[in-house]
Amino acid sequence: MGATRARIAIDAMGGDHAPAEIITGALRAKEELGVDILLVGDPQQIQAALPPQPNLGQIEIVPAEGTIEMHEEPLGAIKRKPKASINVAMDLVKRQQADAVVSAGHSGAAMAAALLRLGRIKGIDRPAIGAVLPTIASKPVLILDVGANVDCRPKFLDQFAVMGSVYSQYVLGISEPKVGLLNIGEEPCKGNDLSIRVHEMLEKNPRVAFIGNAEGRDVLSGRFDVIVCDGFTGNVLLKFAEAVGEVMLQILREELPQGLHGQLGTAILKPNLRRIKQRVDHAEHGGGLLLGVAGICIISHGSSQAPSIFNAIRMAKEAIDHQVLERIQSQERNNRQSAIGSSEANSDD
Amino acid sequence: MGATRARIAIDAMGGDHAPAEIITGALRAKEELGVDILLVGDPQQIQAALPPQPNLGQIEIVPAEGTIEMHEEPLGAIKRKPKASINVAMDLVKRQQADAVVSAGHSGAAMAAALLRLGRIKGIDRPAIGAVLPTIASKPVLILDVGANVDCRPKFLDQFAVMGSVYSQYVLGISEPKVGLLNIGEEPCKGNDLSIRVHEMLEKNPRVAFIGNAEGRDVLSGRFDVIVCDGFTGNVLLKFAEAVGEVMLQILREELPQGLHGQLGTAILKPNLRRIKQRVDHAEHGGGLLLGVAGICIISHGSSQAPSIFNAIRMAKEAIDHQVLERIQSQERNNRQSAIGSSEANSDD
Repeated sequence: MGATRARIAIDAMGGDHAPAEIITGALRAKEELGVDILLVGDPQQIQAALPPQPNLGQIEIVPAEGTIEMHEEPLGAIKRKPKASINVAMDLVKRQQADAVVSAGHSGAAMAAALLRLGRIKGIDRPAIGAVLPTIASKPVLILDVGANVDCRPKFLDQFAVMGSVYSQYVLGISEPKVGLLNIGEEPCKGNDLSIRVHEMLEKNPRVAFIGNAEGRDVLSGRFDVIVCDGFTGNVLLKFAEAVGEVMLQILREELPQGLHGQLGTAILKPNLRRIKQRVDHAEHGGGLLLGVAGICIISHGSSQAPSIFNAIRMAKEAIDHQVLERIQSQERNNRQSAIGSSEANSDD
Repeated sequence: MGATRARIAIDAMGGDHAPAEIITGALRAKEELGVDILLVGDPQQIQAALPPQPNLGQIEIVPAEGTIEMHEEPLGAIKRKPKASINVAMDLVKRQQADAVVSAGHSGAAMAAALLRLGRIKGIDRPAIGAVLPTIASKPVLILDVGANVDCRPKFLDQFAVMGSVYSQYVLGISEPKVGLLNIGEEPCKGNDLSIRVHEMLEKNPRVAFIGNAEGRDVLSGRFDVIVCDGFTGNVLLKFAEAVGEVMLQILREELPQGLHGQLGTAILKPNLRRIKQRVDHAEHGGGLLLGVAGICIISHGSSQAPSIFNAIRMAKEAIDHQVLERIQSQERNNRQSAIGSSEANSDD
């Protein structure tokens, strides 16, 4: 992106805990990750939320007016409020004054703003939100789409597989990412109408290492590096997975301290239990990456507090450092050229 | 049903661990639950798997020939093999020689056999598989469909809600079951094409207490007693949920014993950890109930061992004891009569 330090535009007004928690997370990221931070939002509110003497050097504040509320229809609101913080943040990326956007505001609005202001990558029909989950193996799995497209056509998922493979390879460092299709059985004939057709497409796609269907039980197994699905199923699965961490901690809190020996054992195990909390707490795993738009956008939970924002900024920095955007763009460019070269009709976009 | 003791037909040949584990689970259920067991399958194999001197009284063996293999297309195989164990078991229910079927064989074949041999309940377009999951509240949640119908029309889910409510009320003992629609947001406008239309139908359905959309994070919260969804999403979610229990146990096994104090604490906590295992181990939660066919059928995992089979038989017994089938049938009958009574057109089946 040219700049030595990654420059991240933060939607300071988006999310349940904006602006205070957003700013706290951003300041920590500035210090610990060595990124430049642009806080986008109402200057007075941002100033009021800044610590009295931030010993972090210059904080850049980019003024914006208003925000998109959770109940608002995203596309309409994005158009009606050009100066809303998420729009101003996207414009910074468009004008190359920032390398990425992080927002914990209305996720639909963030996607609409990205589409309208930055546009899609050529060759990609629909952007997808990717989420990285830990597995029982020593590597994570990328799942996409987890909410951008609730009704999908087969080629969308085919494209998700390509984008996800690029992200997995360059950001997560997996040399040949194994791609799976989320489905209800192992056999190619299993699934709903969409998944049966996607299976056929993925088998023929030379740009991804498709190894077959991934059932619900396979998601956290580590057998797959990238799992593609429609945004409805993916969103249900992701939110369930996040909540399960909480459920697990609650079961531990209920069962472990029971009885005298329970209390003793639990006291002894305190540091180990803290590590378990870290492994299952979804705040540790950042936000979702919007793949397929011509800019890097991290969409965080509305409930994000400072640690989540910090992790979302780290995710943005990694995507910048590893040039995810440029790599997807060049993949698509090469694909078009090879399609022209082999004079195969590939005008189906 | 006439009989004092519930009579359960067991597909002794179905499942990865058939017949040995199936029979072990069935014998335990006979003893502990006071049910009559009919073991359906190859008499020689069943005899060979029976303990030398079963001190459990008479074991009834019902001969069958062959079974439906996992790779076989269910409907074709069911028709081609009328004497297969799952067909013979269904026929026992049809002839009222048994009150329920339990099978860990090919689940699609079990459904096909139930549909062909027993038929649907009048008023129900499609049967659904319901699964009961524990929640963090002191009551379980029923999710349906978890795999019978991968592509659904809105009215299917509307009917799932009615059947699920009956099951929740009479078997799970919840006086007014709160029904939710699995979806990606709280607002009625959220979701895919299917869920938006189902939301409208459920809001108008006087036979269920619909309280709105259930997101992935709400599934285990205890806020909902019945959650309806298409069989694709439900199957992915269920298999993920079951695997998560394993993941949790693995994280505990990895993290708890670390360090000297970790080993000490873990040793002290052994009984508490055993209780945790019981709470999250999906083998403890029986199988899926096929709702909407004119008979009681429990579909267990292919991987079921004796404890799962035992729990599946308990599930069958509870459905028999609480007359789930008769209650759904009478609900549907009343619904038709009231529709005629109010001379509203309701011929949309």
